[in-house]
Amino acid sequence: MKKSLGPKTLVYPTPVFAIGTYDSLHRPNVMIVAWAGICNSQPPSVAISLRKATHSYGNLVRRQVFTLSVPSEDHVQQADYCGLVSGREMDKFAATGLTPTQAEHVDAPYVAEFPLVLECKIVHTIELGLHTQFVGQILDVKADESVLGPGDSLDIKKVRPLLFAPDTQSYYGVGEFVAKAFSTRQPPK
Amino acid sequence: MKKSLGPKTLVYPTPVFAIGTYDSLHRPNVMIVAWAGICNSQPPSVAISLRKATHSYGNLVRRQVFTLSVPSEDHVQQADYCGLVSGREMDKFAATGLTPTQAEHVDAPYVAEFPLVLECKIVHTIELGLHTQFVGQILDVKADESVLGPGDSLDIKKVRPLLFAPDTQSYYGVGEFVAKAFSTRQPPK
Repeated sequence: MKKSLGPKTLVYPTPVFAIGTYDSLHRPNVMIVAWAGICNSQPPSVAISLRKATHSYGNLVRRQVFTLSVPSEDHVQQADYCGLVSGREMDKFAATGLTPTQAEHVDAPYVAEFPLVLECKIVHTIELGLHTQFVGQILDVKADESVLGPGDSLDIKKVRPLLFAPDTQSYYGVGEFVAKAFSTRQPPK
Repeated sequence: MKKSLGPKTLVYPTPVFAIGTYDSLHRPNVMIVAWAGICNSQPPSVAISLRKATHSYGNLVRRQVFTLSVPSEDHVQQADYCGLVSGREMDKFAATGLTPTQAEHVDAPYVAEFPLVLECKIVHTIELGLHTQFVGQILDVKADESVLGPGDSLDIKKVRPLLFAPDTQSYYGVGEFVAKAFSTRQPPK
């Protein structure tokens, strides 16, 4: 029997992504978003949602580009801090010791220490209510060599991304391999 | 040193969500999406992206409602099958033995066996390229009592949602608790 929990923003898994932008003085900033995900295959695109009140919102509107860096479990404290504090009040790169690095294809900084990075230019801006959704076309994906497997495939167990559990305000890691995808067109037993 | 992997739809974690719709004859269908995520807090909304070629696309455009059911690890074979086969060629509920259940707030079926369900009405339809993004306002969240913790909070370790790793076409489970979120405004050491 299912119990109604009301209208809530509650699905699992929910990601933890670090959005890198420059402000009007070209100072690097990083914020954390969890309302996000891949939204299109061609052109490859990722959607991120932010409140207008955030410092990064103005940076995104002004420059129309961003990076998305995926923190590993090792950087949970830095990621959590970047999700709590505003770039208006604090240089979060300096405060956390994380290293802003200029992206190759867009004028935005990424987090050098995070193992997986997407470089994106904004192609759609959609007003949804409290949040504005920015759809970023992915111009490049970059990954640390240490998280790559055979054929330069990205090994999720080496990336060790964080999962955010909104309801209990907790972070979890990635668990065990469960199954291969697209394995059979035969109905399961 | 980061290695360029090119413009790809590649971030971790990526979800596995089962989208429930009725077709023009009110026959229930379920498909799997991975290009999806929460996109707005007020009104609470979730975004899902589908190709126009899918059977569900027509159902969504016609009826403007859907359910989103989150499969657990136990249902990986059924979920994988529903992601491979089209509702045009097969009654996927019958083939998998999954049970279509009428939602309470929208005219769409959900998957009774999956522990977490969102009932959604479409409030935005956005053409992004190969994929069309449907933004669904979440009218209710329902969960099996067996996956609830203290205060009816949703326990991710009981839901046991699947993670999809696009690059290796594999499913993974949720791992261990890593940290509490929003824990301190003090910069990490």
